[in-house]
Amino acid sequence: MKTVKSKSIVLVGAGNVAWHLAQAFTAAGHQVVKVYSRSGTSGEELTNLLPFASPTTSLDFRNTAADIVLVAIPDSALITVLEQLKVTPETIVAHTSGSQPLTVLSEIKGARVGVFYPLQTFSKAKPVEILHVPILIEADSKEVQLELEELALSISSQVQQIDSEARKQLHLAAVFACNFTNHLLGISQQILQESGLPKELLHPLIKETIAKAMHQDPYSVQTGPAIRRDDNVLQAHVQMLQQHPTFQALYQALTNSIQESDQK
Amino acid sequence: MKTVKSKSIVLVGAGNVAWHLAQAFTAAGHQVVKVYSRSGTSGEELTNLLPFASPTTSLDFRNTAADIVLVAIPDSALITVLEQLKVTPETIVAHTSGSQPLTVLSEIKGARVGVFYPLQTFSKAKPVEILHVPILIEADSKEVQLELEELALSISSQVQQIDSEARKQLHLAAVFACNFTNHLLGISQQILQESGLPKELLHPLIKETIAKAMHQDPYSVQTGPAIRRDDNVLQAHVQMLQQHPTFQALYQALTNSIQESDQK
Repeated sequence: MKTVKSKSIVLVGAGNVAWHLAQAFTAAGHQVVKVYSRSGTSGEELTNLLPFASPTTSLDFRNTAADIVLVAIPDSALITVLEQLKVTPETIVAHTSGSQPLTVLSEIKGARVGVFYPLQTFSKAKPVEILHVPILIEADSKEVQLELEELALSISSQVQQIDSEARKQLHLAAVFACNFTNHLLGISQQILQESGLPKELLHPLIKETIAKAMHQDPYSVQTGPAIRRDDNVLQAHVQMLQQHPTFQALYQALTNSIQESDQK
Repeated sequence: MKTVKSKSIVLVGAGNVAWHLAQAFTAAGHQVVKVYSRSGTSGEELTNLLPFASPTTSLDFRNTAADIVLVAIPDSALITVLEQLKVTPETIVAHTSGSQPLTVLSEIKGARVGVFYPLQTFSKAKPVEILHVPILIEADSKEVQLELEELALSISSQVQQIDSEARKQLHLAAVFACNFTNHLLGISQQILQESGLPKELLHPLIKETIAKAMHQDPYSVQTGPAIRRDDNVLQAHVQMLQQHPTFQALYQALTNSIQESDQK
């Protein structure tokens, strides 16, 4: 982490991403001055944890001395919020979305804009070591790029420049590696619970699976009945899932995909 | 690990599981005396690593002084091999399959039978710390149960008794947690490669995802566009996968399953 000039930051949003970034910025010596949330409630919960911040339900920050307004809200709410956002021309406005292009910020007339995308899964309940979280930066000018990189480097050692197209691909890859993987681990836990088996039984297997997949090409170390074309086991598994038709369909889609990737 | 009387062991099969077990048994002071493989080639590769073993293509072990014959072959070959297997009545025959019941061994008339299931993903190229691998034992008598548990405890600290039905459920859960998870990590790596992005970018995210899923209920920490019902992102992702129709179908099946699990 680099020591940098303390910045004055507004967070638009008080969800999982804003929650962790606000605390990381504060720990790095920046001042989070305002937190916007629609209802005000979650903004208040977050500002209670921050020394200088107050909650707000207004998106007009023209009278707030802010270096950076960071918009960390779901993509589905982004356009509506950006349309209402009001900042001074000196303020940098950046969003934190993996899938939204830089150009979505052209809504905000005359602002200096960029993207500040932390590639991590955040839940309010669990602390995250931000230092190793890649933060991917894009901006409409060299100057804004440098300012956002400086902010990122004050909380993380993994800062990179990346354009909108690459970020979109990265976000798609992250959905497979994180969101979808998490769901599969949820299903496996549900199967264990329904059979009265302790979930810890699978932990050594999960750890080894991940260690292997990170250090080798996962396709080359694929094991299990799908890649062995062990049809008896595959049929038995589909049969065992008959109480869960959605899991059956998923089992089939995953088996197809494993077998097809193997033919290439 | 417990120090036990050295056992004389025959391995039927020379694939990933046999490969790792044979070396673990040898390291624990047991004598692997023979390794069967159909062609003899893979059996020879494995016996080259073992001090006392010779390869064989015969399944008649009546003249081999073996305490235990461990059958570690794909389920699809199990019945054919068991039909040809010949052992003395004192020998214990055990298979290593997660999905096959104990009763599959009733093919072998007069033998003492059991199951010796190591819950791990094995690839020949990668060493595995067997000490923490759960080994799940089932047998047709208390005596065989104890002998197999003793053998298991000589290489692992995680030995448990489990019946055929629970083992089948455990194996199904393992397919989701390991085989399917590995495939998703493969897809995510492929997406990164096709965009010229380094795979290491996702490592902090993968590590955090797994750490979270092992210590909390994965369903309760699910993140991403599917659970947020962020239809614009979901549609954009399906569109981005248009060169990979199988991945598109899989993306849809996973999204459905995440959204359905969330409604319960």
